[in-house]
Amino acid sequence: MPRGTSAALLSLGLTVFAFSLGATRAQSNGADAVAALYSGSAERLIGAALEDDTGYRRLAYLSDRIGNRLSGSASLDRAIAWALSEMEKDGLDNVHKEKVMVPHWVRGEESLELLEPTERRVALLGLGDSVGTPPEGITAEVVVVHDFDELEALGEAKVKGKVVLYDAPFKTYGETVAYRVNGPSRAAKLGAVATLVRSITPVSLSTPHTGMLHYDPTQPKVPAAAITIEAASTLARMQERGERIRVRLRMGARMLEDAESANVIAEVRGRELPDEVVVLGGHIDSWDVGTGSSDDGGGILCSWEAVRLVKKLGLRPRRTLRVVLWTNEENGTRGAKAYREAHASEKHVLAIESDSGVARPFGFGMAKEASPKARERVSSIAPLLAGIGADRIGPNGGGADVEPLGKDGAPIMGLDVDETHYFDWHHTEADTFDKIDRLSFGRCVASMAVMGYVSADLP
Amino acid sequence: MPRGTSAALLSLGLTVFAFSLGATRAQSNGADAVAALYSGSAERLIGAALEDDTGYRRLAYLSDRIGNRLSGSASLDRAIAWALSEMEKDGLDNVHKEKVMVPHWVRGEESLELLEPTERRVALLGLGDSVGTPPEGITAEVVVVHDFDELEALGEAKVKGKVVLYDAPFKTYGETVAYRVNGPSRAAKLGAVATLVRSITPVSLSTPHTGMLHYDPTQPKVPAAAITIEAASTLARMQERGERIRVRLRMGARMLEDAESANVIAEVRGRELPDEVVVLGGHIDSWDVGTGSSDDGGGILCSWEAVRLVKKLGLRPRRTLRVVLWTNEENGTRGAKAYREAHASEKHVLAIESDSGVARPFGFGMAKEASPKARERVSSIAPLLAGIGADRIGPNGGGADVEPLGKDGAPIMGLDVDETHYFDWHHTEADTFDKIDRLSFGRCVASMAVMGYVSADLP
Repeated sequence: MPRGTSAALLSLGLTVFAFSLGATRAQSNGADAVAALYSGSAERLIGAALEDDTGYRRLAYLSDRIGNRLSGSASLDRAIAWALSEMEKDGLDNVHKEKVMVPHWVRGEESLELLEPTERRVALLGLGDSVGTPPEGITAEVVVVHDFDELEALGEAKVKGKVVLYDAPFKTYGETVAYRVNGPSRAAKLGAVATLVRSITPVSLSTPHTGMLHYDPTQPKVPAAAITIEAASTLARMQERGERIRVRLRMGARMLEDAESANVIAEVRGRELPDEVVVLGGHIDSWDVGTGSSDDGGGILCSWEAVRLVKKLGLRPRRTLRVVLWTNEENGTRGAKAYREAHASEKHVLAIESDSGVARPFGFGMAKEASPKARERVSSIAPLLAGIGADRIGPNGGGADVEPLGKDGAPIMGLDVDETHYFDWHHTEADTFDKIDRLSFGRCVASMAVMGYVSADLP
Repeated sequence: MPRGTSAALLSLGLTVFAFSLGATRAQSNGADAVAALYSGSAERLIGAALEDDTGYRRLAYLSDRIGNRLSGSASLDRAIAWALSEMEKDGLDNVHKEKVMVPHWVRGEESLELLEPTERRVALLGLGDSVGTPPEGITAEVVVVHDFDELEALGEAKVKGKVVLYDAPFKTYGETVAYRVNGPSRAAKLGAVATLVRSITPVSLSTPHTGMLHYDPTQPKVPAAAITIEAASTLARMQERGERIRVRLRMGARMLEDAESANVIAEVRGRELPDEVVVLGGHIDSWDVGTGSSDDGGGILCSWEAVRLVKKLGLRPRRTLRVVLWTNEENGTRGAKAYREAHASEKHVLAIESDSGVARPFGFGMAKEASPKARERVSSIAPLLAGIGADRIGPNGGGADVEPLGKDGAPIMGLDVDETHYFDWHHTEADTFDKIDRLSFGRCVASMAVMGYVSADLP
């Protein structure tokens, strides 16, 4: 039994043991057949991914020279133009962009001053989609809560007219991010005039993390910003000591008219079934801080590089292997929606998203809704990646940009990587190229290339 | 043989094995005698240090409410006044301040803009004592070097008129800090108009680190600032790609007239030999970023709390046990010099400095110049700290504030703590109270209290 199948089996858990065992036997036979057909091309793709620096250097260029690229920004336009131009140089097929109108949120100037019990400037990052404050700012007392229960217990009497700070320690991103996403409207419902949130991260060196909020349309929109772990815990201690806390929050954030942007697409056209498509991709936009190297420069470059290497090695699969650089994942996922609409008539055999960084890959997580047949197919391919330790097929996965395809019935997966440090610099000034490990990036490219190519070529 | 003596012996190395063995026997006898006399009071002090939150809470207050306290700042004055007032409340003897005139450097407004090959704001912190730029800033090309050899190899032809960036990876603080301290004048000697230095730290989340520079009086003074690891490596990659790099550096830094400050002193007066003194201390000033919680709020609070607990437990040693909060360690060590002059007539039996943070303590490092007798004495006391793992007496140690006493012949030591993360936030906005571990802080207090009290009381 190949190691990857075993790992997948374990992660499915004992409750589905009997089913998995059956599936595993089939996979094992399938894997033997796949290995017989594809071990040679897989080895070539892995070797090329680990040796060829093109994608890694492009990620450095995107980071250093183009920088961050929020929807509506000139730098996102430059990134799109650059990617198209480079893809043409790569000799890929059908290089083009597909227009998408995207939200155009701008941060503007922003500042947070602690006025009481002592005066101090506090580092902050406004949250994406937040409304701004009046020009003179909002000056109010702060009340600190550690979770939603504390907020509700305080009630309108103690929240009205206040700035609510959510000082919730990081558990998991999925769990703790609720304070950033839903915190503003939940506080506004009780009369809060603004909200602050402790940055969604396990560690900090005085580093605020931005990210989206979601306003409940039934509640007033209040300005919302993230502050550092350091500042949040300082305010929490002040409250514990019984000190009155007052701040002045100024945010110039505002939403402009929708801007024109685009998804970027390139292919190695299928030699037999060109209308059946395997998609690899990530998102080309980023937040407006740092250089979006891990989120999601790495994802677009490992997808693109995988397709480039298939082309470069002269491999032309039966079906079309496509790279898609979606726009506007961070604050709207308009790119994903537009792609789904524009390509509704095609058959998506598989769609793989890379949007969790490009640290060491373990394999892929496949959406739990995927059919047993689709799961069997990718499980038969995964053992080709055992040599680089990326042969695990996890019980769930996907990503915001492939989800619409999943809803239409396509099997979707996410590249599964070591996320130990991903949230340390996620959505911060520290998301820069120095955080990218060359070998891990190469393994991500190899994983995408082998899974993508073989999926597109399987008889 | 007590464990602490064994560790000290190992750290002295095999070359002095025969000597150490002789010394160890004497220490071992000495340690037995010390244990017989002091194990009871040591246990009480350790217990109190681990249970009593007073010092820990005061460190939180100093951090949160007074904040950073650069020489000449109003917040340093507030810290001094607060410490004196609290020490009076503690009922300590001879609570007073001793006037010290200190340099008054102010940072002013500062900014760094990358102009070519792309436009971007770059985070920076001017270096302490740096001169400023003209109001319009200095606009020049950047040349990146990784060490002084590269700088010298470039020579005046390639350095003149440029901004030199030292992109030297962190090895040890002692080794790498040379680029911050001596880099400006070494570049100025070749005609550089300003210098930048990669922050002296092993890790970064886009966090610049300030600190002192030293101008060579024979060279022109050029403005100097630290940038983040992220920014330094970005500029280095630009140079590797052959891209022209231009920046505009603006710094409003300037040196004002000397300001009045003070050392803060309090004691438990000796019952038999009050003019023989054991000093525990750290520095009350800090850089003008973060809240100086580790550097050196922790050092002053663990010294002060040690003396307070001796008093609180009703222990009155033969000799005087004194806490000194030196001023101006960071940019002048004027406090240390003034203390030495003012107290030249006293006999300093021992002086212990805590200025490496208050993470888990391992024991003490004793200056290599200390007499065998002084080393024997502290080595006989150290085993009392074996229960908290702080019984090591290292072969060297001290600190900038006790060095002048050492030069006058006093035995000096530094509290030896785990420095694994100290330089992660040293001299940054991230040096805040959340980095202080309660248990480790308590162990530091216990170490200072036991070593201080027993040294002051030994017959």
